[in-house]
Amino acid sequence: AKRGAPFPDDPFAQLWGAIEAVFKSWRTRRAQDYRKVNGIPDDLGTAVNVVAMVYGNMGDDSGTGVAFTRDCRTGQNVLNGDFLANAQGEDVVSGARTPEPIAKMKRGALAKVYRELERIADKLERHFRDVQDSEFTFEHGRLFMLQTRRAQRTGLAAVRSAVEMVDDGLITPDEAVQRVPPQDLDQLFHPMVDPRASVTVVAKGLPASPGAAMGEAVFDADEAEALAKRGRKVILIRPETSPEDFHGIVAAQAVLTARGGMTSHAAVVARGMGKTCVVGAKDIEVDPQAGRLRANGRVVKKGQVITVDGTTGRVILGAAKLVEPKVGVHYTKLMAWADERRRLRVRANADTPADAQRAREFGAEGIGLCRTEHMFFEGDRITAMREMIVAPDEPGRRAALARLLPMQRADFEGLFEAMSGYPVTIRLLDPPLHEFLPHTRDEVATLARAMKLPAARLERLVASLVEANPMLGHRGCRLGITYPEITEMQARAIFEAACRVVSRGKKVTVEVMIPLVALVEELRRQTEIVRRVAREVFQAEGRAVPYLVGTMIELPRAALTADEIAKEADFFSFGTNDLTQTTFGLSRDDAGRFLPFYVEHGILKDDPFQVLDQEGVGKLIELAVRLGRGSRNDLKIGICGEHGGEPASVKFCHHVGMNYVSCSPFRVPIARLAAAQAALEEQGVINRTRATV
Amino acid sequence: AKRGAPFPDDPFAQLWGAIEAVFKSWRTRRAQDYRKVNGIPDDLGTAVNVVAMVYGNMGDDSGTGVAFTRDCRTGQNVLNGDFLANAQGEDVVSGARTPEPIAKMKRGALAKVYRELERIADKLERHFRDVQDSEFTFEHGRLFMLQTRRAQRTGLAAVRSAVEMVDDGLITPDEAVQRVPPQDLDQLFHPMVDPRASVTVVAKGLPASPGAAMGEAVFDADEAEALAKRGRKVILIRPETSPEDFHGIVAAQAVLTARGGMTSHAAVVARGMGKTCVVGAKDIEVDPQAGRLRANGRVVKKGQVITVDGTTGRVILGAAKLVEPKVGVHYTKLMAWADERRRLRVRANADTPADAQRAREFGAEGIGLCRTEHMFFEGDRITAMREMIVAPDEPGRRAALARLLPMQRADFEGLFEAMSGYPVTIRLLDPPLHEFLPHTRDEVATLARAMKLPAARLERLVASLVEANPMLGHRGCRLGITYPEITEMQARAIFEAACRVVSRGKKVTVEVMIPLVALVEELRRQTEIVRRVAREVFQAEGRAVPYLVGTMIELPRAALTADEIAKEADFFSFGTNDLTQTTFGLSRDDAGRFLPFYVEHGILKDDPFQVLDQEGVGKLIELAVRLGRGSRNDLKIGICGEHGGEPASVKFCHHVGMNYVSCSPFRVPIARLAAAQAALEEQGVINRTRATV
Repeated sequence: AKRGAPFPDDPFAQLWGAIEAVFKSWRTRRAQDYRKVNGIPDDLGTAVNVVAMVYGNMGDDSGTGVAFTRDCRTGQNVLNGDFLANAQGEDVVSGARTPEPIAKMKRGALAKVYRELERIADKLERHFRDVQDSEFTFEHGRLFMLQTRRAQRTGLAAVRSAVEMVDDGLITPDEAVQRVPPQDLDQLFHPMVDPRASVTVVAKGLPASPGAAMGEAVFDADEAEALAKRGRKVILIRPETSPEDFHGIVAAQAVLTARGGMTSHAAVVARGMGKTCVVGAKDIEVDPQAGRLRANGRVVKKGQVITVDGTTGRVILGAAKLVEPKVGVHYTKLMAWADERRRLRVRANADTPADAQRAREFGAEGIGLCRTEHMFFEGDRITAMREMIVAPDEPGRRAALARLLPMQRADFEGLFEAMSGYPVTIRLLDPPLHEFLPHTRDEVATLARAMKLPAARLERLVASLVEANPMLGHRGCRLGITYPEITEMQARAIFEAACRVVSRGKKVTVEVMIPLVALVEELRRQTEIVRRVAREVFQAEGRAVPYLVGTMIELPRAALTADEIAKEADFFSFGTNDLTQTTFGLSRDDAGRFLPFYVEHGILKDDPFQVLDQEGVGKLIELAVRLGRGSRNDLKIGICGEHGGEPASVKFCHHVGMNYVSCSPFRVPIARLAAAQAALEEQGVINRTRATV
Repeated sequence: AKRGAPFPDDPFAQLWGAIEAVFKSWRTRRAQDYRKVNGIPDDLGTAVNVVAMVYGNMGDDSGTGVAFTRDCRTGQNVLNGDFLANAQGEDVVSGARTPEPIAKMKRGALAKVYRELERIADKLERHFRDVQDSEFTFEHGRLFMLQTRRAQRTGLAAVRSAVEMVDDGLITPDEAVQRVPPQDLDQLFHPMVDPRASVTVVAKGLPASPGAAMGEAVFDADEAEALAKRGRKVILIRPETSPEDFHGIVAAQAVLTARGGMTSHAAVVARGMGKTCVVGAKDIEVDPQAGRLRANGRVVKKGQVITVDGTTGRVILGAAKLVEPKVGVHYTKLMAWADERRRLRVRANADTPADAQRAREFGAEGIGLCRTEHMFFEGDRITAMREMIVAPDEPGRRAALARLLPMQRADFEGLFEAMSGYPVTIRLLDPPLHEFLPHTRDEVATLARAMKLPAARLERLVASLVEANPMLGHRGCRLGITYPEITEMQARAIFEAACRVVSRGKKVTVEVMIPLVALVEELRRQTEIVRRVAREVFQAEGRAVPYLVGTMIELPRAALTADEIAKEADFFSFGTNDLTQTTFGLSRDDAGRFLPFYVEHGILKDDPFQVLDQEGVGKLIELAVRLGRGSRNDLKIGICGEHGGEPASVKFCHHVGMNYVSCSPFRVPIARLAAAQAALEEQGVINRTRATV
């Protein structure tokens, strides 16, 4: 480049120029941005090492390469890497020549260099006590190490290398537990798109639920279900999903939506099932009527095969090559160490016996959140539910509820069976009633015929239930307060189910959770109903089952008055999804319009629905824990929002003194490991590793 | 009544029975309920006084009556009341005979009794230093006083009697200020339905904005405007109002809605204009298409005259007799005393020069909240606004904004002129953009033609802007962050207007307020824009105007991080409407479905949108004041929610150390008086009076 000055001939001028260039590079825009993103202080400064040059391009007994002390994809303890004979570093980087595996150096002229490399690599790993990624050059058969650093690795490799290093006496089990980034465990349980496969990405969205899956594009939940029943693999694609799409999500291999954030309906439901999901793929325009989507100039029609990569958020045309996961002995060993070290209990959010079973397999020690409303959408339950809603009076509602009772009881029996010996937290009905009703004119007319109601009356009713801000409307315990018969039915179903399961010799611990409490008086009145029904059921059944009644802390007001609320609650469970929404004044369904902009432009460091906002929401949580335990020192405290499976948030929960976290079954291992790391951190075992690939 | 025991003949048994009956009355359900409502402790107990009986029914020289030491409607210092000759108390109460005014006793046989009554009444008033409501009986010309108590009185009477008692040396000005219930001042400024008129009430709603008005029923804003232009008096009746009804509200005598709470759109707008308004009249079914409403079996058709009583919430058939208000010398004197005593400044929420003018007349010392969005609905501004919204890119938005600039600047000039010498707080654009767009298919098609856009494109755009929870969506400073050009235009209009008004010799103090801040970084970036534009305008105009940039504290997160936010803010203004919504997780538009139930059933003592919730929301406010002043001890702090004009809330604002409250112009006197009472309370001048009629 033209600098206005001739290139200096004096070697010292050259040297000083080079030294200056290095110092200057500390202040480039790119370096500043990098430091900002990675939280590296600007006043740290850089060093310049001046060393003699060695040459890899001095003939066939010279060369350069990169070596890894272990396999960074699998973790296998084998020296590996690439080299180029008669070349300098630039030749490798530029891609002008294709390097060869270093294993080729073992035999022949370079065998001595290889043995030396082996010896030094081993020494470096023992010194740094971690997998090394080293650059080397050899000049006329003499080996020089240029650089060495911690190697980036997959989750699988992180686990295996950590465990094997303990076996080799390089590190302690404490260090092994502290070293594996919890979120990387995710990679161990999901198929992945083969990183070496070449794919056509049509759009990118938010990686809402990890894994990869392929199938035929389908734009309707009923159709997804019908095709799945015939053994076809389908991907459900919707502008966004609602509870009415539930059966379609169940039937699909993966879910893709154009709208919604990390905690939108599709994301939460799919994650709960461990099903691959990409949401908020903004570039996609979904036309369910026409049965197609448009994205960046391409069209995907109904029946066309696509692959959804929920780990990266990619939407891929056609069937990409997938790699199946393997969980092995190293994982089991690492998690046993983690479990010995953590103080936090880890539960799962699970709504069905199948979910509960999966959660136990992942190591969950109970259910922290069973959302009862999902149970009302299946089969003919929705009909009874709708009859309850349209009933003109209490007797009408009671009649419909009586038909829901046995179904709900059967659900709970299944859950209690699957979770025998562990606590099960059941949240009473939470969503606004209009979520159970159809909304288009045609659907309402169909329902009216089925219910033998005048269509106009039903339409008026549906219209009267529509809310300007349903998130802040007639939902949660507000339903149970205005319609106590709903709370009664749910409590009856819970306690009857518990008695039945206990009579079969199982151990049941019930925790009834009252949602959306803002006022202690709400909790007091709902608790009264639950306790009364429990007494009635225990009397009738001739046996009692241990139970607690507690509340979600998901509104700022509940956190602010936690001392009062704790007087009526056996436990608190922080519903951090809603607490984040109300603390920020941010609807997770609508945040897609500006939240990505905020994160991209550094106004927010992380999406607060993914990573708990410790400065704001966290302050409320700390306050509530302090006030709550101040009133009642044996108060059991947990979290059941999406944050319960996010490592930094889990650590926060440990530090504020919660008893447990609860998260999607697939995130249970992540939470277990993060909880162990928090406990170790507290004891001064510090994690010096950074995130891996 | 049959009690199973015969009536006792023994006088002592009778006496003991009577005594017992009094004690028992303390425990009746009615008495318990009364104590609960009025906050009287249950363990206070009652006393029984046993006195000899006197008889008013011993002939024409005997009688009974009630006397008031002053006129309880006007406050005039004249003994008044009713009496019945030859009668006992029951005869007066039962209404069997019609009593006569006590003035009739002055002349004739009872003149001596009257003079004695006058003497005792005067003595009682001097003793109790308040207007007395006394029961008396005279037996054969001898007067006995049976009971005396503080007299209930109208706001007018409260003011006049308090001031005249100071003039008479009975009480101090401190006591006079402390004695008048602030909310009763409301009665002094609005016409009232004559309490003696007999009326037909068709429905009751929430008394959203006081006063009474009559007019023809109209069900459409355009029609209301058209009829008003022809000099007709109309009442605008809507299921609920939206910003598009603004011109109809302006044109109407009063507003009536079937839905919405005390802080719904109609309520807030009407209150701001001092216009009578009743909202949430649940029994009313409004059919705007058919031009009629149904309520409790009655129908009111378009053109029919009704009366709306915003003081009581009544909807009255036909033209009820109204009483016009009079503000006089006593009011002026009382308010002067109040102003000398208060520490809190009182501002008004005002969006137009006319509002500002009215606010000054009511004693406002500045504007605490000017909502700029209302300005965008008038005339052809809405067109420019809509062009801005539908613009495909930034240049398109800038072009539309350039057309809005002069209109907005003219608005601000008017405001600054009207408020010369006082601070004016202007809030930047707050509502979500879809509030400015039409929503029905037909309206969208009309707009598309006007804008020369394909209807389908506009429809898609409108649909894409619809939000699940607009209250928690893309609004407030989130608009200014994603579209900085909006903030730029508004800042330019503000500072250009300020410079122009200053150049005409007026004094302008500008406070620019950034709404809906959750993160300090939002405020930092918006403040940067405002300050940059200010510099540019001042440079171009060759003069500078003093200004502050501050923020609304209306989200829990802002309150929780107030220490950080204060570093970027010159002032805080608590937006307690939104802060109440987010702290409770309660949409004011939807709360009508359960909030009235909560208040009726004692789950909540007051509607938190009317009376500030000191236990929850108040805790956040206290925290924010403490954190904010901790960072910046000269931080100016005020409130601009509806609570700024509610006496108990104003007292709270005083106690937490705010600098000012801001409320609707008509509530300014209430706030002034409440602020004075808070200051007196702090000095130990206690209010012993209870609420009046």
